[in-house]
Amino acid sequence: MDEVSLDALRSRLGGRLITGEGVEPYVADMSLAEPEGMPAGVVLASSTEDVSAALAWADEHRTPVSVRGAGSGLSGGAVAYPGGLVVSLEAMDRVLEIDAANRLADVEPGVITSELDRAAQAHGLFFAPDPASAHLSTVGGNIATNAGGLRCIAHGTTADAVAALEVVLADGSVIRTGARTLKNSTGLNMTPLFVGSEGTLGVITRATVRLEPLPEGPPQTFMASFDDLEAAGRAVTEIVSTSPRPETLEMIDAVCARLIERFRPSGLPQPEAALLLGQTVGPTAARDAGILLETCRRHGAAETGSQEGTALMEARRLANGALMAGRYAVHCDVGVPVAQLVEMIRGVQRIAEESGRGVSILAHAGDGNLHPAVESDETPEDRARAEAVVDRITELAIELGGVISGEHGVGSAKHRELPLQFDAATLAAQRAVKAALDPHGILTPGRGI
Amino acid sequence: MDEVSLDALRSRLGGRLITGEGVEPYVADMSLAEPEGMPAGVVLASSTEDVSAALAWADEHRTPVSVRGAGSGLSGGAVAYPGGLVVSLEAMDRVLEIDAANRLADVEPGVITSELDRAAQAHGLFFAPDPASAHLSTVGGNIATNAGGLRCIAHGTTADAVAALEVVLADGSVIRTGARTLKNSTGLNMTPLFVGSEGTLGVITRATVRLEPLPEGPPQTFMASFDDLEAAGRAVTEIVSTSPRPETLEMIDAVCARLIERFRPSGLPQPEAALLLGQTVGPTAARDAGILLETCRRHGAAETGSQEGTALMEARRLANGALMAGRYAVHCDVGVPVAQLVEMIRGVQRIAEESGRGVSILAHAGDGNLHPAVESDETPEDRARAEAVVDRITELAIELGGVISGEHGVGSAKHRELPLQFDAATLAAQRAVKAALDPHGILTPGRGI
Repeated sequence: MDEVSLDALRSRLGGRLITGEGVEPYVADMSLAEPEGMPAGVVLASSTEDVSAALAWADEHRTPVSVRGAGSGLSGGAVAYPGGLVVSLEAMDRVLEIDAANRLADVEPGVITSELDRAAQAHGLFFAPDPASAHLSTVGGNIATNAGGLRCIAHGTTADAVAALEVVLADGSVIRTGARTLKNSTGLNMTPLFVGSEGTLGVITRATVRLEPLPEGPPQTFMASFDDLEAAGRAVTEIVSTSPRPETLEMIDAVCARLIERFRPSGLPQPEAALLLGQTVGPTAARDAGILLETCRRHGAAETGSQEGTALMEARRLANGALMAGRYAVHCDVGVPVAQLVEMIRGVQRIAEESGRGVSILAHAGDGNLHPAVESDETPEDRARAEAVVDRITELAIELGGVISGEHGVGSAKHRELPLQFDAATLAAQRAVKAALDPHGILTPGRGI
Repeated sequence: MDEVSLDALRSRLGGRLITGEGVEPYVADMSLAEPEGMPAGVVLASSTEDVSAALAWADEHRTPVSVRGAGSGLSGGAVAYPGGLVVSLEAMDRVLEIDAANRLADVEPGVITSELDRAAQAHGLFFAPDPASAHLSTVGGNIATNAGGLRCIAHGTTADAVAALEVVLADGSVIRTGARTLKNSTGLNMTPLFVGSEGTLGVITRATVRLEPLPEGPPQTFMASFDDLEAAGRAVTEIVSTSPRPETLEMIDAVCARLIERFRPSGLPQPEAALLLGQTVGPTAARDAGILLETCRRHGAAETGSQEGTALMEARRLANGALMAGRYAVHCDVGVPVAQLVEMIRGVQRIAEESGRGVSILAHAGDGNLHPAVESDETPEDRARAEAVVDRITELAIELGGVISGEHGVGSAKHRELPLQFDAATLAAQRAVKAALDPHGILTPGRGI
């Protein structure tokens, strides 16, 4: 690292360039990935110009750059590079405009996702993407990983909610993708390319996101407990291929339900095998919940019930913390086509049995995204054995036509798994696009793609 | 053109390579763009391998390639290049699988869009994208232009309906983008990059598209006539930012309504200024139509009504033919943020007045996509004058934060307008991506981007 040249960057950024011990809070994320060394500096960007100056400097000096919002990522994508530069967007945290008539919001990338939603609700609108981390993760981070969450079955992923972006490319140039219209067939559609690109193609400095009108009336929460995990899976498959459509449809297995209730008692029903928990909204919410529960009973649900409000869905949001506290620390984020859910569940149970290790299944069942969590203690040896179980689960998901990551991103944690999902020509094409936009490979190298 | 080398391609393709007079049906599309000369050959592809062989040959010989489905494009994107190669996908027209449980269909690109929809309906599902040309355009062509249509207000554009693609790149290599899952955060999201790329990045040889469950009950058509075009625009703006949401919301001005009724009498109400025509679906369709008409009345609608079924929406689908027959032949495809619809309408009326030329406004009002059509006779001189009116309309749309093309694509017709919408850095980034995937620039050169 050339100290003189870092001074050159300091002359542009002043106190917004942090070096020395002050970099400490910016080296890790919420994954198990360990930083391999300290970065040379952290840029606390306050504007697009700051980001542009930082990247132009890094590009000139061939310095690897990691990008972070709240640092809540679960795949190691935001971990600092030794001697590298960290670009933090946490100070760019303004909701710039709620354009209610066009159902759009203009935001800086560091806005906390739930705060954007709150700002939208003041206008009778809401922001549909709601990853379980919405209260702490940033909109920019959610865009960079194409975060999913619970409501994707009704509203799609974060990609579907992004209308336009301002992005700083590796050389410091600033581009604008997308449009404020619903339709756009002009030029290449670059916006979704940056969504989920995990910092490998550019740094998002501004986003125009789509908002939805708040549904009429209170939401209805419905739940059905099953003595048989596969029967629950079959109920899910039928629900998603027919009307009415729930807004959320989660599956919590018996292990996970027990851990959640132990973590924070909230009256979550304790199923013999699995609990389906979902929500309906709109003028026919109660009627729709009734129809969906009838489907569950036809598939053998032991107990069913529904209630107005969202109290039980809040219990679901505690699952990650409950699993970690319960030492189910090694998890994955695979997705399968939803009709393959039953086969996937059966396979995970078989893998758990063969490995002699506890595996809890928590799933955004309605969209086929599973988070199996493997029991492990904190020793590197035991974690490695738990990771081997995760590898087998991932291979099974791919065999069933699925994906390595449904919503967390690849980061460093899953980088070695990419060839499972993509053939050589496909990976080469993705990397050609990366090289075209970042010819010196400074942006989040060796991760994401 | 090197005749020997074309023979080499013939040895691979046999009768599927057409030369001489047989190329005639493949040189033009449905735009006003004129071919500048005859292509050297037409490949009637029957497989991915055929397309791969054709592109590898063209890449080696630096021969420009145009790609076509039904040739129904309105922007000149599929017009043959003099001495070039045409790749036609019309013979690759199979629906390969309806995977009802996963709400997916696997299709070849040459399937007619309405036939895919019919195949889906047999499984209680439907294919949401419905451009007005759905009965003659192909799924591949709709993907290549990110076709829109009437139902985008509820279901998004074609981009939202594409889950995965098989694409042949310029060098003949075959890649697979996307996944069969609803969520995917693995690698770069290349699928939407190819959607709307108008043949500039690769040739789509297979698509996995998303299907939706058929809504319950019959659709309801509602209509409201207005004495004031701007009042109609204000009603649209309110409707799209509140619940309930209609599935379609079209605007037809007095000129267009008169031409449609003259073209084929079907009892379409004749408004003083504009007609709003829309559809609601689902269990509360009739109730929802009532709420939407109440909004229209609040904005001063002169007459309102609703009826079960889709008969009047069929009249709307005749608009293009009616406008052409009525000599409103020069049209455009601009989009604006929907809250800017009123200002856009006002501006188009002003431009029409200043030009002393009839301009009819037909709009997918609910998504802000307008097709103003300018009166013109068939002489090149008069067409050029009408085109100048279109240019002014396009500039206005951009001033209002809109786009050059909402759903037809840029093709050759709007290529010179690209700098209106994109700044230099943004265009350069798009072209860098194009160059990375097609380094010799053989695919649809000089069009699209």
